[in-house]
Amino acid sequence: MCHPLNDTIVAPATSQGNSAIAVVRLSGKQAINICDKVFQGKDLKKQQTHTIHYGTIVDGNKIIDEVLVSIFKEPKSYTKENLIEISCHGSAFIVTQIIKLLIRQGARPAQPGEFTKRAFLNGQYDLAQAEAVADLITSDSEAAHQAAMNQMRGGFSAEIKQLREKLIHFASLIELELDFGEEDVEFANRKELKLLVKGLQNVIQPLINSFDLGNVIKDGVPIVIAGKPNVGKSTLLNALLNEEKAIVSKIPGTTRDYIEDRINIDGISFRFTDTAGLRKAKDKIEAIGVERTHQKMNQASLIIYIFDVNDTSPENLKEELKKLNTYLPAPVHTGGPGGRAGSVSAQTGQTGRQAGNIPYLIAGNKIDKCNEQTISSFKKLIPGDIIGTPLPYEIIFIAALKNQNIDKLKKKLLEMVNAKTIKTANTVVTNIRHYDSLVQTRDALNKVLDGIETGKTGDIIALDIRNGLHYLGEITGEITTEDLLENIFSKFCIGK
Amino acid sequence: MCHPLNDTIVAPATSQGNSAIAVVRLSGKQAINICDKVFQGKDLKKQQTHTIHYGTIVDGNKIIDEVLVSIFKEPKSYTKENLIEISCHGSAFIVTQIIKLLIRQGARPAQPGEFTKRAFLNGQYDLAQAEAVADLITSDSEAAHQAAMNQMRGGFSAEIKQLREKLIHFASLIELELDFGEEDVEFANRKELKLLVKGLQNVIQPLINSFDLGNVIKDGVPIVIAGKPNVGKSTLLNALLNEEKAIVSKIPGTTRDYIEDRINIDGISFRFTDTAGLRKAKDKIEAIGVERTHQKMNQASLIIYIFDVNDTSPENLKEELKKLNTYLPAPVHTGGPGGRAGSVSAQTGQTGRQAGNIPYLIAGNKIDKCNEQTISSFKKLIPGDIIGTPLPYEIIFIAALKNQNIDKLKKKLLEMVNAKTIKTANTVVTNIRHYDSLVQTRDALNKVLDGIETGKTGDIIALDIRNGLHYLGEITGEITTEDLLENIFSKFCIGK
Repeated sequence: MCHPLNDTIVAPATSQGNSAIAVVRLSGKQAINICDKVFQGKDLKKQQTHTIHYGTIVDGNKIIDEVLVSIFKEPKSYTKENLIEISCHGSAFIVTQIIKLLIRQGARPAQPGEFTKRAFLNGQYDLAQAEAVADLITSDSEAAHQAAMNQMRGGFSAEIKQLREKLIHFASLIELELDFGEEDVEFANRKELKLLVKGLQNVIQPLINSFDLGNVIKDGVPIVIAGKPNVGKSTLLNALLNEEKAIVSKIPGTTRDYIEDRINIDGISFRFTDTAGLRKAKDKIEAIGVERTHQKMNQASLIIYIFDVNDTSPENLKEELKKLNTYLPAPVHTGGPGGRAGSVSAQTGQTGRQAGNIPYLIAGNKIDKCNEQTISSFKKLIPGDIIGTPLPYEIIFIAALKNQNIDKLKKKLLEMVNAKTIKTANTVVTNIRHYDSLVQTRDALNKVLDGIETGKTGDIIALDIRNGLHYLGEITGEITTEDLLENIFSKFCIGK
Repeated sequence: MCHPLNDTIVAPATSQGNSAIAVVRLSGKQAINICDKVFQGKDLKKQQTHTIHYGTIVDGNKIIDEVLVSIFKEPKSYTKENLIEISCHGSAFIVTQIIKLLIRQGARPAQPGEFTKRAFLNGQYDLAQAEAVADLITSDSEAAHQAAMNQMRGGFSAEIKQLREKLIHFASLIELELDFGEEDVEFANRKELKLLVKGLQNVIQPLINSFDLGNVIKDGVPIVIAGKPNVGKSTLLNALLNEEKAIVSKIPGTTRDYIEDRINIDGISFRFTDTAGLRKAKDKIEAIGVERTHQKMNQASLIIYIFDVNDTSPENLKEELKKLNTYLPAPVHTGGPGGRAGSVSAQTGQTGRQAGNIPYLIAGNKIDKCNEQTISSFKKLIPGDIIGTPLPYEIIFIAALKNQNIDKLKKKLLEMVNAKTIKTANTVVTNIRHYDSLVQTRDALNKVLDGIETGKTGDIIALDIRNGLHYLGEITGEITTEDLLENIFSKFCIGK
């Protein structure tokens, strides 16, 4: 192991920047002793766990800061080691001085995620829980927060552990048969094993299926906003935004030809992609532009098509939508993992959605500038006619600039992306590593089933069971390598 | 008072941003009760001060986060009130949720600086100390840090308080005389009073004088780097930078025609201004450009003039410097407060500096590309000749790109700005409010002296003493108004 557990590690635990306070964290056997050497106040070595002590951090005669020192004694700490938190004034200069001082006294700068890695290695968390800590910190919507919190507090870990134990039991029974060699005994009842494996698949498959939803929860529901220039796309976004009093964050695409606006609506994170740029690219008949349009639409959970009621006739709207429809990709939402990289959907398992059809939400904008007749003319359209599908999508009439009917549109939007499913989702897989391991487990278990059906010998079945056990164990960290841990924790922030 | 002290206030105490932990602070009579309502774990109301408790923050059935709650009971806290610190996961989302929840339970969002304002109002700090807390947080060099720390821990507060008490004693003696009206008694010995006031002036004047130094400590030593294009100004800055392994921060001027590089060298903050842009402005004979050149040079503690030894003859160097000299302003450093707005100097009280003369540090660059003879030719110059002053400024020969002699230049630089004075400065005034009050006090005391000399009546002398008392009291906050406090604490960050 490249970062020995017996070192005492130190790092800032709070964000950089001027603030009321900042916290420096110190963990390891010597944490209390090292802090005591630079602390003027009570003798920290004699204090009880979970107590706080006022004093000064000193470098010789020089006072670095007046601080509060919190003491946590092993195993009653985050890392299950002796742990010290120094709460100092929130200045980067002071934090740096304190850390330098502690390093001179024998501490070592912590690697990213090293505190949580220790929490895992010392049995505070299993691996899936430890990974959820990072998700919890970066979650920025209620749904993402609840999913991460649920996982950190156990989530599917308990279920997976239970399944694993049952499987281990069967594996050892089968391996016992092997010891008896030619004697043709069956300690492991094949029928029972088959039932167990099928029971396992019944747990694993829904978890695999939940990944699409997990992705939407973690990364936001992908929405494409389409419409001709100046129909009010930005105004609509702003109206939704004001309604939520949220902050919109512009996330430029790698190629800078589209912009994502991330907005939390009713506890759910949405990613709105404006396709304006893409559509221009199409006019130039650039293959790449068309490809990207396909891609973005393919990835969307929903397309909001917005038009200006004063600028389009019902007939023209039909044509616009037909044209837009040609961008829609061939069926890809087959329920399998194929669309994983991007084609996430909030509607997995929903019957309302047809393969290859991304649902539309059609918004007729600027109704403050037209009469009732105009609106009526659009209302006469049969939605099925408009976009060539039989799905009953109505048109919502709004005046984005006047904030008129935005609440209606929002309600429809939440309904169409199945907000309820997203918000009440209990155990969902949000981590691609877990998803991969679950798929590998399922495949191994399918081989086990196949082996039983075709009367394979015990050694072959045992091998497939062991394979399944391996992949299950990777999720919660019973089976791990230093490389895997390195890979997981290096993505954490320093001090966590 | 617009923010009643009996409210319980809440605010984030750490910087925003994803980090290991974040801290939410709650202060006031109800702090413990309010937190207890949303905390699942031990009964916080029954816990001792300075203890830490693990549990969850819950909103009904929903878990917001797993947290550690630190309890501080009045008066043993920063604000001297009941104070709670909730240490949660470092996510802006979670911090917001927790604060919203606490507000629903009866807390109120804290105003900027309100925690420290309460610390002042409850007698934890005097006003000058409370102000130092903000300086401490923003200090980014050792010298600034030490000055702020010194002030926060008492600094000149004790001295000022003592002086004030003596003065109060005299004021009441004189006022006693007034009670006796026509009787012509003198309770206050005029000779003694005169001695006391002179003693006061002997304390106040050095504090006033220290403001120039305080400014340099707090805002950095202003250095102007001059020289023709491509002589290696940036390379020199980088060389100084590398030597310090520090981060240079580019601070564009308001008019974007000059750039300040802020670098910490040997614990002192320096502000390097490159005048390249200014000199171009001069070529265009733009009055504004010349004005700015004057201004920047006027404000400098030192001018580093850098030239390329391969590109200039000793004769030309003389001419260049003569030309540059014409930019130098008329004498302004008269020791008075006139130059306060900008013309700070690290050398106040030093004999080496003449009024109107900013000292030069001359650097001959690119000596890696010339022979010894070239260097010798420059060495023959008499410094007095060069810049028209008798000051013994030598030329330092460097090769900035090769990092050659940078240590020599740095040593000279630190020597010329009196680094030792800056670093060992003990009690200095860094706050313009304190400076103003000290000047007002001095002026009032001068009137007292004048009154004694000219045999003014007791009531007039008493008035001037009361004036002096008023200004002295403003510094430490014995005398204050809600407006003054508002003005001071509104500049603090939220949560402090």
